[in-house]
Amino acid sequence: MAREARYARVRRIVGLTRRLTAAPGRLYSLAELAAETGAARSTVSEDVALIDEVLREAGQGGVETVTGAAGGVRWLDTVSAARARELVQALIVELSDPERIIPGGFLYMTDVIFSPHWAERIGALIATRFLPLGPDMVLTMETKGIPLALTTARALGLPLAVARRESRVTEGPSLSLNVVSSSGRIGAMSLPRRAIPQGSRVLIVDDFMKGGSTARGLEDLCRELGAKAIGCAALCETPAPNPRKALEYFSLLRLEAVDDAKRAVSLSPAESFTRYLEEAGSDA
Amino acid sequence: MAREARYARVRRIVGLTRRLTAAPGRLYSLAELAAETGAARSTVSEDVALIDEVLREAGQGGVETVTGAAGGVRWLDTVSAARARELVQALIVELSDPERIIPGGFLYMTDVIFSPHWAERIGALIATRFLPLGPDMVLTMETKGIPLALTTARALGLPLAVARRESRVTEGPSLSLNVVSSSGRIGAMSLPRRAIPQGSRVLIVDDFMKGGSTARGLEDLCRELGAKAIGCAALCETPAPNPRKALEYFSLLRLEAVDDAKRAVSLSPAESFTRYLEEAGSDA
Repeated sequence: MAREARYARVRRIVGLTRRLTAAPGRLYSLAELAAETGAARSTVSEDVALIDEVLREAGQGGVETVTGAAGGVRWLDTVSAARARELVQALIVELSDPERIIPGGFLYMTDVIFSPHWAERIGALIATRFLPLGPDMVLTMETKGIPLALTTARALGLPLAVARRESRVTEGPSLSLNVVSSSGRIGAMSLPRRAIPQGSRVLIVDDFMKGGSTARGLEDLCRELGAKAIGCAALCETPAPNPRKALEYFSLLRLEAVDDAKRAVSLSPAESFTRYLEEAGSDA
Repeated sequence: MAREARYARVRRIVGLTRRLTAAPGRLYSLAELAAETGAARSTVSEDVALIDEVLREAGQGGVETVTGAAGGVRWLDTVSAARARELVQALIVELSDPERIIPGGFLYMTDVIFSPHWAERIGALIATRFLPLGPDMVLTMETKGIPLALTTARALGLPLAVARRESRVTEGPSLSLNVVSSSGRIGAMSLPRRAIPQGSRVLIVDDFMKGGSTARGLEDLCRELGAKAIGCAALCETPAPNPRKALEYFSLLRLEAVDDAKRAVSLSPAESFTRYLEEAGSDA
C-alpha cells in the first residue's frame, strides 16, 4: 500500500469512528458512508469491521450489521458485563459516602443523577439490558428521571417522552390520570396525546423505584394512548420495589437503609442487576 | 512501516478517537494515553494531531492541547459557524410545521426539546458559544430546560444543577426564593445548598426566554450561594426577551408569532445568534 493510501485510510477510519459513535443506534447504509468518504463500499465495509473489532475488545460497544434492503451498519453503546459490574461498584462507592447522609435518613443522590458523566454510563447500561426487547420509545416522569431517560434514549437512538405533574395549555390535548403512592398520597400525571404514537413499545425509566406507583401510572398512560409498556428500569430501588409482574424490571442498586446516627449507608447491587449479570456472563 | 505496525496504528487510532470523543472536555495526559495504548508518547501525540486535523475538517470539533504540568489533550465538541447555521435552519424547518400549532396560539416544541438527537446538537452549540467565558457549572430550572442543560454540560465536561419549584426534604438544606413572572404570577424556585459550590462560574440554560424572570431568579440563587452567573442561553425567545444586561445572553431562535387562524408560524434566527455567527465567521 502506498504511503498516501495508508494515510487516506487512517483519516477515513477517524471520520468513520466518530460518525458511528456520535449517533448510537442510527443506521447508516454502506452506500451513504462510501459516498461521504469517497471510498468503495467494500473498503468501507472492511473499515467498519475493524472499528467493530477494536471497540468490542475495549468494551466500547460494537457495530451491528442490519441486512436487507433497508440495511446498513449501526453502532450500539452496549455495556459488557465487566463494565456493568465496574459501574455499579463505582456508584456504590460514590453514593456510600457518609457526607451524603441527610438528616431524616435520606441520601443525597441529586448530583449523580444530574451528572452528564454518570447519566451517560447508566443510560448505556439500561439500554443494553432492554435492547433485546425492541423498545421504540422511552418514557419517564419529571423531574429526576429525565437525565437517565434521556441518556437511555440516546444510547438506543430513540425519542423520549416526559410525563408531568400538570397538563400544560402549551402542549395541546393531554391525557391525565391520578396515581396513589404507597404512602397514600394522590398525585396527577399528564402526557400530551401526541407524545407517544399508537402502537409504541415503551421503556419506562426512572431514578428511584419505591412502591412502584409511578411506574404503574406511566404504564396506564401508555395503555390509554394505545401503546405498550415493555419494561421498567430504575437507578435505585428501596427494599420493597413493586412493579407489575408483567413488566420486565431492572434496577442497578438497592438502598437498604440510611442510618443517620451511625452515619452508615447500606447500598448494594439490586437483585435484578445481579441476575442480569449472571445471564449476560453465561452468554459470553 | 511493516504491515503489523500499520495495523497497530489503525487500531490505536480507532481507540483514541472513541476515547477522546466519548468524553468532551475531559483532559487526558499523553502519559495516560501512551500507557493505555502501549505506544510512545511521541507516537500518541502524532496520532492525536491527526485525529484533530480530521475532526476539524469535518466540523466535528477539535482536540485542544493544554500545556503545563497538569496538561494534556481534550476534545471539545465545538460547532463551526457553518454547522451552527445549518442547525438553526433545520430547527426552523422542523418547528414551523403547521401541525405543531396548538389552539390558543402555542407551538408544540416538547418533542424537539426532549429529543436526544436535537438536544445534543443544541447543547454543543451553546457550549461552543460560552466556552470562552470559562463556566464551571451549568444551571437550569425544571422541567423542560433539563435536556438542553444536560447536553450543554456534557459538551463542556461540567456538572449540572437543576432548580426546582419546591424544596425537597430528601435533598437537605436548600435555598428558596420567589420570582414574579412578567404575567404577574409568583413562583418559587429552590436549590439544594450543596448543588453549587461557592465561587462557581455558572452558565444558565433554559428552553424558553420570555420575560426573563426565570433567568433572573436563577441568577439570584447563584449570588445567594456565593456563585456568579456568567451567561444565559435559551433555545427560543419571544419578541421581548429581557435578561439582565450584565449577563451574556444567547438564544438560537425567536418566535415572533403563531397564527392559529392562518396556520402560520413566524420563527427566525434570534438576533443574538445572528450576531454570534457574524463574530464567529470573522474569526475564521
